[in-house]
Amino acid sequence: MSSKPIGIIDSGVGGLTVVKEMMRQLPNEPIVYIGDTARCPYGPRPCEEIKKFTWEMVHYLEKFEIKMLIIACNTATAVALKEIRSELPIPVLGVINPGARAAIKVSKRNQIGVIGTAMTINSKAYELALKSIRKHISVHGLACPKFVPLVESGEWSGPIAKEIIEDTLAPLKTTPIDTLILGCTHYPLLEPLINSYFASKVKIISSGEETAREASVILEHTHSLNDEADHLFHQFFTTGSKTIFKAIAKQWLELEDITVQSIKLI
Amino acid sequence: MSSKPIGIIDSGVGGLTVVKEMMRQLPNEPIVYIGDTARCPYGPRPCEEIKKFTWEMVHYLEKFEIKMLIIACNTATAVALKEIRSELPIPVLGVINPGARAAIKVSKRNQIGVIGTAMTINSKAYELALKSIRKHISVHGLACPKFVPLVESGEWSGPIAKEIIEDTLAPLKTTPIDTLILGCTHYPLLEPLINSYFASKVKIISSGEETAREASVILEHTHSLNDEADHLFHQFFTTGSKTIFKAIAKQWLELEDITVQSIKLI
Repeated sequence: MSSKPIGIIDSGVGGLTVVKEMMRQLPNEPIVYIGDTARCPYGPRPCEEIKKFTWEMVHYLEKFEIKMLIIACNTATAVALKEIRSELPIPVLGVINPGARAAIKVSKRNQIGVIGTAMTINSKAYELALKSIRKHISVHGLACPKFVPLVESGEWSGPIAKEIIEDTLAPLKTTPIDTLILGCTHYPLLEPLINSYFASKVKIISSGEETAREASVILEHTHSLNDEADHLFHQFFTTGSKTIFKAIAKQWLELEDITVQSIKLI
Repeated sequence: MSSKPIGIIDSGVGGLTVVKEMMRQLPNEPIVYIGDTARCPYGPRPCEEIKKFTWEMVHYLEKFEIKMLIIACNTATAVALKEIRSELPIPVLGVINPGARAAIKVSKRNQIGVIGTAMTINSKAYELALKSIRKHISVHGLACPKFVPLVESGEWSGPIAKEIIEDTLAPLKTTPIDTLILGCTHYPLLEPLINSYFASKVKIISSGEETAREASVILEHTHSLNDEADHLFHQFFTTGSKTIFKAIAKQWLELEDITVQSIKLI
């Protein structure tokens, strides 16, 4: 049993989709969240820079004595998970394997689509994760570089979002996919439009939901669940605008108020 | 990395629903299965007897040097998981928490039905597991003592099964459940009939599928996945009729042939 918080880091607000599911599936666990909004998106950056930024968030979390770290950003998971996991003494979860496992579980025809940032798709991290579970699986990857800026600007519904989604996803319409992994934690905010574009014929996997589920499994098996839930306190940090972050977080998490602080990472 | 097998134990053939999902989600992992068919069902037996029988299966598995144990029987999980987990040096999974976690994940209205043996329902194990995650949840439990004998006799479809299911589940029709946990690993064989009885309006959670998913998570995080999948060999043991067990297992697992041996437990 441990009342220590869980650290969740992301390049911006996308990781809040993981936070939302954590609050639903693990309502007794305190969360410390960092969104590196000022340097978002990570997708188009060089690997070494993404690694550096991710480590900076990890170092910032040191003073909170977190019991688990979730890298709630597919790009950072693809680039930095292995290294961070090998160096921290706590369980470190990325969002790629949970998404891959869930896709394997629901796909009937082994035809899986993956959308994400250019870095996530080019890294072939999902393809590797999926094929390490099942060799004979077809993976159709598609980079969607316009999606993260859309969400970070708060424009995740409406006609502009609809048009960008239709244009971007058109190449997947001609593939035989039965399951689509949202390989970026920003994308669940676009899920209603994506689902409607595929006329609900494709099963959509949100890596955020799946990661929260796996966090729950690991906390149980390491005897680290919190059983003192009376004074639950979540903390949110952003490297960008506190006002914008707070507005998006309140809307997405359906909370009346939250504590957000602006920070600088070095 | 470890090529050691995973032990799966059940009171009979029900745990094969877990095996089927393990083969789908973890196709590289060798399995040793024991079905205590001769003493099935466990549901109506006293706690001490269920514990004794479960330990006998665990002891039988000692020579196989298993890397993980799955108690693929809800009754045995409710009664013996805690004790066995505290005494074995390997990860021990039951089927109750995975089912509870999955139900929390999909339920929208926090109205959850649970069906199982009399022992599982009376133990309130699911209710405890669900409420430890979310306090304000309504749990509607129903014992279905006729379902296990139905499945063990191979009669899991057809008019008799349909009638028994309709009669047994009638009390749940008047509850506001939006999610139903199949709290017995035998029940997924009845899932098509159960689903049709609820006109697909209730989300059905199979503890077997969910347990396989969690086994996968724990194997990854304990660095115990098998990466030598070339000589995969599953072994099945039954305390009852080899012929009946083999017929059911081949049909359910959709395999042309499997190796089944009769054993005696002491």
